[in-house]
Amino acid sequence: MNLLDLCFGKPLAASDERAEQLGVASGIPIFGLDALSSAAYGPEAALTLLIPLGAAGIAYIVPISSSIIVLMAIVYFSYRQTIAAYPGGGGSYTVASENLGVFAGLLAASALMIDYILTVAVGISAGVGALVSALPKLLPHTTLLCLGILVLITFINLRGMRQAGIIFMVPTYLFIGTLLAALAFGVFKSIVSGGHPVPVAMPPTAPSSAVAAASVWLLLQSFANGCTAMTGVEAVSNGVRAFREPVVNTARRVLTIIIVLLMVMLAGIAYLVRAYHIAATDPGLPGYQSVLSMIVAAVAGRGVFYYVTIGSVLTVLALSANTAFADFPRLCRAISLNGYLPDSFSLRGRRLVYSQGVYFLAILAGSLLIVFRGVTNRLIPLYAVGAFLAFTLSQAGMVAHWKKNKGRGSGRSMFVNGLGAVATGATVIVVLVAKFIEGAWVTAVLIPALLLLMMAVKRYFVRVEDEILTREPLEIAAVKPPMVVLPVYRWSKPIQKGLRFAFTISADIHVVHVCKEDQKEQLKDEWASLVEEPARRAGLPVPKYVELQSPYRLVITPVVDYVLMLQVENPDRQIVLIVPELIELHWYHYFLQSNRGELLKGLMLLRGNQRVAIVNVPWYLTGT
Amino acid sequence: MNLLDLCFGKPLAASDERAEQLGVASGIPIFGLDALSSAAYGPEAALTLLIPLGAAGIAYIVPISSSIIVLMAIVYFSYRQTIAAYPGGGGSYTVASENLGVFAGLLAASALMIDYILTVAVGISAGVGALVSALPKLLPHTTLLCLGILVLITFINLRGMRQAGIIFMVPTYLFIGTLLAALAFGVFKSIVSGGHPVPVAMPPTAPSSAVAAASVWLLLQSFANGCTAMTGVEAVSNGVRAFREPVVNTARRVLTIIIVLLMVMLAGIAYLVRAYHIAATDPGLPGYQSVLSMIVAAVAGRGVFYYVTIGSVLTVLALSANTAFADFPRLCRAISLNGYLPDSFSLRGRRLVYSQGVYFLAILAGSLLIVFRGVTNRLIPLYAVGAFLAFTLSQAGMVAHWKKNKGRGSGRSMFVNGLGAVATGATVIVVLVAKFIEGAWVTAVLIPALLLLMMAVKRYFVRVEDEILTREPLEIAAVKPPMVVLPVYRWSKPIQKGLRFAFTISADIHVVHVCKEDQKEQLKDEWASLVEEPARRAGLPVPKYVELQSPYRLVITPVVDYVLMLQVENPDRQIVLIVPELIELHWYHYFLQSNRGELLKGLMLLRGNQRVAIVNVPWYLTGT
Repeated sequence: MNLLDLCFGKPLAASDERAEQLGVASGIPIFGLDALSSAAYGPEAALTLLIPLGAAGIAYIVPISSSIIVLMAIVYFSYRQTIAAYPGGGGSYTVASENLGVFAGLLAASALMIDYILTVAVGISAGVGALVSALPKLLPHTTLLCLGILVLITFINLRGMRQAGIIFMVPTYLFIGTLLAALAFGVFKSIVSGGHPVPVAMPPTAPSSAVAAASVWLLLQSFANGCTAMTGVEAVSNGVRAFREPVVNTARRVLTIIIVLLMVMLAGIAYLVRAYHIAATDPGLPGYQSVLSMIVAAVAGRGVFYYVTIGSVLTVLALSANTAFADFPRLCRAISLNGYLPDSFSLRGRRLVYSQGVYFLAILAGSLLIVFRGVTNRLIPLYAVGAFLAFTLSQAGMVAHWKKNKGRGSGRSMFVNGLGAVATGATVIVVLVAKFIEGAWVTAVLIPALLLLMMAVKRYFVRVEDEILTREPLEIAAVKPPMVVLPVYRWSKPIQKGLRFAFTISADIHVVHVCKEDQKEQLKDEWASLVEEPARRAGLPVPKYVELQSPYRLVITPVVDYVLMLQVENPDRQIVLIVPELIELHWYHYFLQSNRGELLKGLMLLRGNQRVAIVNVPWYLTGT
Repeated sequence: MNLLDLCFGKPLAASDERAEQLGVASGIPIFGLDALSSAAYGPEAALTLLIPLGAAGIAYIVPISSSIIVLMAIVYFSYRQTIAAYPGGGGSYTVASENLGVFAGLLAASALMIDYILTVAVGISAGVGALVSALPKLLPHTTLLCLGILVLITFINLRGMRQAGIIFMVPTYLFIGTLLAALAFGVFKSIVSGGHPVPVAMPPTAPSSAVAAASVWLLLQSFANGCTAMTGVEAVSNGVRAFREPVVNTARRVLTIIIVLLMVMLAGIAYLVRAYHIAATDPGLPGYQSVLSMIVAAVAGRGVFYYVTIGSVLTVLALSANTAFADFPRLCRAISLNGYLPDSFSLRGRRLVYSQGVYFLAILAGSLLIVFRGVTNRLIPLYAVGAFLAFTLSQAGMVAHWKKNKGRGSGRSMFVNGLGAVATGATVIVVLVAKFIEGAWVTAVLIPALLLLMMAVKRYFVRVEDEILTREPLEIAAVKPPMVVLPVYRWSKPIQKGLRFAFTISADIHVVHVCKEDQKEQLKDEWASLVEEPARRAGLPVPKYVELQSPYRLVITPVVDYVLMLQVENPDRQIVLIVPELIELHWYHYFLQSNRGELLKGLMLLRGNQRVAIVNVPWYLTGT
């Protein structure tokens, strides 16, 4: 067990839980990394679509960013109310299912799950993408690098939340600090120079306008891409339970800081993009440079500061996946408590983490990374639909909540959430339409598929419970001892032990000997002296000796067949199959033994029925 | 089970075995592919070392090839005798261990195992290497291609020998046919032109001599490299059992054909290399072309015939791995029958193949391919040591054999095998010395390591047998019924069933209820009506109700602790833990259930002792 401790930390008791809860400083990296890091790809995704407009397109970033910031403010006020109303954790799933019914809740849950999976995939692929464009030699290993980082993050998360917070705090605050400093310095320079700052490192000049004016469709698409900057905002309200007391205040403070930081970043980026005339470069072509890289280089030149900033961007992008790892398992737990996912999702592991959810997320995100070969551009169109659908259902649920819980200020609250629902609902439609062909259709297929799957899981559990649960008292009539079958390959101490055990539970014992092709049948000859006489002397019934032939060289199937035959011939009896098993001293001895016992048990369970039970009689090797 | 049938073929009975045996035509591809295909890399490996001598070096190929052909003839006559003396399979392992003792046998076995693993790795990497130099776009995927081919070959071999023979027959005979035709045509042209044929496609001209004359050291190294052409000759004598009756004659005929073909190829290649002045090109540099490719192009030009020949070379190289797949599992079986490997190696699977050996070989060869990234050049120096060490031990064993079995002609036979032993033994030393630094040291480390591992396995089995085997009759005194523990989470039909089973084997039943943090303790309140009253009415003893607390949220550990506590308090009693288990209707439902039952069994076995047994009482869901 020491190896386990080393890898995953010592097991924690439930009473240690308090200590694992988060304050403001550690809550921001845990729940805000996803939201904050999206500043690195959101504006760029919007600008990339404006490339055809050339230099003339740059100016459009200001209205687009402004509308995203306004949308974000609306969502912020909505979620503040949600946190207060649901201090036990007010994720979209909880809010939608409590107020709009099971179906809406599951729809929100599916949308969120898809969103979290994409968060992990996009975060990692964006980080690796940036790393790879800095070190082109690594390009052929993109997928492998993505999977390596995924494994690392999974590992960190299995160790539990608090350590995760400490590990992620440094890069997050470095990212926030350097990016804000770069933006502030740029804005200062721009104002001092009367709006015409001179870039330290010249950004590539945008081609002159190829298209006369922006079409509404193009602006909508650009807005839809830019909305990816808002993903991750949901995390705080879903994770309220993880915060330190008073949970509502701590959570609200964390949410406020995250949203304000994100707004400042988006506004700063938009301002500097226009001031320095920075146009996006095509991610597919040589000479590509990310928008953030161009801004920082223009403001501060390509010195130490540039590399620290870009380094922290890379780190934070790759680690933004962590938000999903903090939140996805909690979501799965909530769903599983309602029976729509297996209950293993609600069991906390050794380190108070819902380990099953962590594994599940890692596997799904890994599959996405493999299918899309770790290329961010192919993943972006799948994104945002899930997040905004969850936002909409959550806000709509809050409207219903205020309708039910009328009180002081509930009218105002209902208006705030209603505005949020309308705004985010409209955004879902815009994003879905604008990016349907590029990939949003994948999400539009996956979300209902997941929904149906979860409903099928629930149906299954209801059916099983109907079948096995009962309030009837125990029915019991005449108690007959079982018939016992003991398979024997060679006469040994474990077999003697199995036989002694058989005597303790029944007088009706069948010792079954499977003949191997090329083995002398010693056992039959010695049966009388080895077993029959000792049994008679002890005044016990003599076990029956049965010899089985095996045409397929299998030593297992004939035993199972014999048990089934016995069971058919004795309809009023319970049959017990005894499986003697060697238990090794060391785990690596496992590979040395034939796993015959396990195969026998497995096959017996597979082909057995209500009247067959299996007994493992272990024999512990002492090594002496 | 239908999926299994489709992938691996229907299971075969032991009585079907005759039909799976091989004649001459199907035996050549199965046991000769490795030996024959080494004509494609052996001469080239020798020539590559002569590159520094420039055009002057070409002539040395004739004496080097001649000595290899002489060595091959010696080995051939040695093995003819082995086949006759060991019709049950006369691999180096059998011969060495029977005549020179266990240690020599295991040394031969280790050497052979390493050799087979390298055969697979080198065959596949050489094939892929050639493919990749034809299609440079595939270069970054070398390792992946190698592993893909490995999986394919593994799969074919798991389906059984005969199908494997048919699949490999076409490319083998195509290879033999086209290569012999090319060589014969070339020799004919050369003779007609008085020893100065005009190449159809000009081979690259060799640079003029940089070094004045060949040193002995260089010639030795070249000879050592060329000896890789002889690997694979062992296969026939090891696999005699697989041939059709009369086995000795069939096997000898196959061996003769393989050796003669190989000699003709080596001689033809050496002759044409000199006649056409073909120097090897550096495999690491651009413009590289394999020696066989240059010969065929010089003789026949780069037409359809060229591409068919080269295509069959590629296929055969990649498939040469198959020889090892036919032979390695048989070797492992022989070792395991003597107890130096786990006995799962001697169990034939559904298709009469020793499946375990196939898996083992695939995994080891796969590891080599990954470590050496599928580059043949890095693997070649590891090769040949194992093969020649096995040859030597086998021939030396035959000498001892004739010494023991004196009879007509045994003196002559002893001389033949003695000559073989001396010749191959000298070759081992040459190869080991000449290529020690380049990689033979890896083999020199691996062979003893494998030897020690197998001896440790044997020691383990001897120890276990000492501990468990007995000729003592059953000891049995007073039979006391066991104490029974039944863990209960909720009152259900499977639990009722488990309880009814408990009544059939004992009167001393402890029902253990683990309390979850947030669960109402209904069971305790209803215990009297659900269990106690029905038991009293049926005249049965009332089970004891025990409630356990779980600080670590674990529902399993407390049960195990309780069983262990009971066992300590009752030193004269056997304890039985009953584990009710739900058996699903469909395999995919498995993922839905918590595997609590399995975990409980596993942990109980791990922490239990000789007085604790485990009963699985399965409950089969009906789906209604």
